[in-house]
Amino acid sequence: MKKKPVVAILGATGAVGQEFIRLIEERKFPYSALKLLASARSVGKKMAVNGVEYAVEEATAASFAGVDIGLFAGGSISKVLAPEAVQRGCVVIDNSSAFRMDPQVPLVVPEVNAADIALHKGIIANPNCSTIIMLMALKPIYDLSPITKIVVSTYQAVSGAGKEAIEELREEVSAYMRGEPMMPKILPTKSLPVHYPIAFNLIPHIDVFLDNAYSKEEMKMVHETHKILHDHTIAVSPTTVRVPVFRSHAEAIYAETATALNVEDIRNAIQQFPGVQVQDDLEHMQYPMPLYTSEKYDCYVGRIRKDLFNPKAVNLWVSGDQIRKGAALNALQIAEYMLAHNML
Amino acid sequence: MKKKPVVAILGATGAVGQEFIRLIEERKFPYSALKLLASARSVGKKMAVNGVEYAVEEATAASFAGVDIGLFAGGSISKVLAPEAVQRGCVVIDNSSAFRMDPQVPLVVPEVNAADIALHKGIIANPNCSTIIMLMALKPIYDLSPITKIVVSTYQAVSGAGKEAIEELREEVSAYMRGEPMMPKILPTKSLPVHYPIAFNLIPHIDVFLDNAYSKEEMKMVHETHKILHDHTIAVSPTTVRVPVFRSHAEAIYAETATALNVEDIRNAIQQFPGVQVQDDLEHMQYPMPLYTSEKYDCYVGRIRKDLFNPKAVNLWVSGDQIRKGAALNALQIAEYMLAHNML
Repeated sequence: MKKKPVVAILGATGAVGQEFIRLIEERKFPYSALKLLASARSVGKKMAVNGVEYAVEEATAASFAGVDIGLFAGGSISKVLAPEAVQRGCVVIDNSSAFRMDPQVPLVVPEVNAADIALHKGIIANPNCSTIIMLMALKPIYDLSPITKIVVSTYQAVSGAGKEAIEELREEVSAYMRGEPMMPKILPTKSLPVHYPIAFNLIPHIDVFLDNAYSKEEMKMVHETHKILHDHTIAVSPTTVRVPVFRSHAEAIYAETATALNVEDIRNAIQQFPGVQVQDDLEHMQYPMPLYTSEKYDCYVGRIRKDLFNPKAVNLWVSGDQIRKGAALNALQIAEYMLAHNML
Repeated sequence: MKKKPVVAILGATGAVGQEFIRLIEERKFPYSALKLLASARSVGKKMAVNGVEYAVEEATAASFAGVDIGLFAGGSISKVLAPEAVQRGCVVIDNSSAFRMDPQVPLVVPEVNAADIALHKGIIANPNCSTIIMLMALKPIYDLSPITKIVVSTYQAVSGAGKEAIEELREEVSAYMRGEPMMPKILPTKSLPVHYPIAFNLIPHIDVFLDNAYSKEEMKMVHETHKILHDHTIAVSPTTVRVPVFRSHAEAIYAETATALNVEDIRNAIQQFPGVQVQDDLEHMQYPMPLYTSEKYDCYVGRIRKDLFNPKAVNLWVSGDQIRKGAALNALQIAEYMLAHNML
C-alpha cells in the first residue's frame, strides 16, 4: 500500500478505543481518513484525534466500505461485524476473544510470532492481556530452551473489565473513605448476577467459570499460549485474580525449561528482547510495580531467580500496562508491522 | 496448673498486641492477673481488658517474675526478653522470627503439629503468617498423600507490616482521592531507605532480600514449612507480594502430591480439618476473598481444582486473617492447648 490507509476504530469511546486514539497520536500512525465507530448510544459524541474533531458514527456493516484497517477494541459486536468488514476488503485486528482460537485466524504478539500475521485471511486476533504480558517475559526464555511447564498467578488491574470497572474502583474507595457502603455493580463480571467490591479486596474470578472449574480467563492463558508459541505440550497452571490496581497487570511466574539455564543468560535474553525491560536490582529495590509500569509501552520483568529445588526452573515477576501492551498497543503494533511490510 | 495463669502481653499496643486483647476477651481466655508490656514510649498508656483498665508497663527482664505465659507480639525485643522470661519460669509464645528455626524451639500451628508443643524448653515459636495460612490449606491434603512440591504466590495484606502500614494505606488512598501525592514512609519495609506507595499498587518485596535473590519472607515459607511438617523434601517455590488489602492474606497455591488424589477427597479432607472452611461454589460465585475473611478465626479455601496437565497436582486459593490466624489467634491457640493439656 503506497497511500496512507483508511482506519476505523470500533468501540472508540471505551477504555481500549480511547487508548487506540492516544497511541495513533503518540506513535504518529499514518492514516488518510479515520472513522470512529461505536454503538448507537454514543453516536454524535465528538472526539479529537491529532487536533481534528470527529463525530462518533454508529458501527454497522456498511461502515467498513472503503476501510483498510479496522481496529476493533473488543466486545461481542466483533463477532458480527468482523466478517462483514472483511467482506468489504477491510483487515480487522480484533481485541475480542471471538476469533482467537479460530484456526483460520492468526493470534499475534508481534515480538513473539509476527510471522503468523502473513497467514491471515482478513482477521488477526489480539491475545488476551494476561497471555500477552506473560509471553513477553517468557518468549526470550523459550528461545534459550523450550518451556515445558508454567505455573502463573495473576494480579490483574480493573482496566481489564473496562472503563466502568476503573470508575467502580474509584467510587468504592471514595465511599469507603467516607465511611459509606461500597455498591459494586460491575466486578467481577458485569453480566453475572452477583457483584463484589474490589477496593481493599481480591477477586479470584475473571470472566466466567467453565465446567472444568477454571475460569475462561485462565483457559485463555492455556490455549492462547499454545497457539502463539506453536507448542501444545506446555503444561500451563493458571490462577487469575483481580486486584485493586487501575491499569497494569502483574504476574508471578514459575517456568520449567527443557534444559537448565543460568540466570545471567535468562536476564540477557530478556533484556535483548524487544518490548521488555529487565528491572531487577534488589540492592537498589528495583523491581516491577504496576503503579510505575502504567502508561508505558514496555513490559517489565524482575525478581528473576533460579528455583530453589529444580535446576531447570526459574521464578520471575512481570508487570505491564493492560490497556497498552495488553490490548491497544499490541493491536496497533500488528497494524504497524503490516504497514512496514507492505501487507495492506 | 490448677489456678488460672498469670499472663503478660509483650507489645500490647501494636496490631498483634491489641488483637491478643480482643481474642482474650472473645475467647474467655482465663487469667488470674494480666500485665500489658511495651517499650518505654507507651508506658502509662491505659488499655481496657474485660472492662478492667490496665496501665501499660515498660517491658524489662524483671517484668516476667511470676508470669506463667508470655504472649510476645513480635519484633526484635523478643530476642532479648524471651530468654529472660524463660529464666524466670515463664513460658513464651513468640510471634517474632527470632527463634523459629532454633532446633530447641517448637514451631507450631496447633491444627497441624500440636504434638510438638510438648517438646518446648520455655519458648514456643509462632510461624510466619503466610506459612500458617498456606499450611492450614495444605495439611489436610498432606494427610491424604505427602506433598512433594508447592508453587505459591502470595497476596499479602498491609497488616503484616504493622499498625503503621495499615495507617499508611489509608493515608495514601485518601491523598490519591484528593489528588495529592502519596507519601510512603513504611512499606515495603520500614528500616529500608526507599519506600513505595501500596495504594493501587503491588510490591513484590516483603521483609528484606537475601543473597539467593529470594526475600526473607519467601525463605520463611520454605524453611518453616519443612520444620512444621517434619518433611525437608518438599520443593517450595514462593513469590511473596504486598497488595492494597488491610488485614487478610490470600495465596494461589499449586501443590503436587506423591499419589494422584481426586478433588472430592481433597475437598472433604479440607472441610473436616479444624480451623478451615471450604468456600468453593462457582455456580453461586462463592470463593474466598480477603474483604470477607477478615476478622474471622478460620481460613477459607476455594477454587479447588485438579491441575490440567499433571494428575498428581491440584490448584487452590486460600485466604485468612493475617492478624488473627496469621499471628495472635494462632499464638493464643497454643496457650489454650497448653492449658487444656495441663502443660503449664
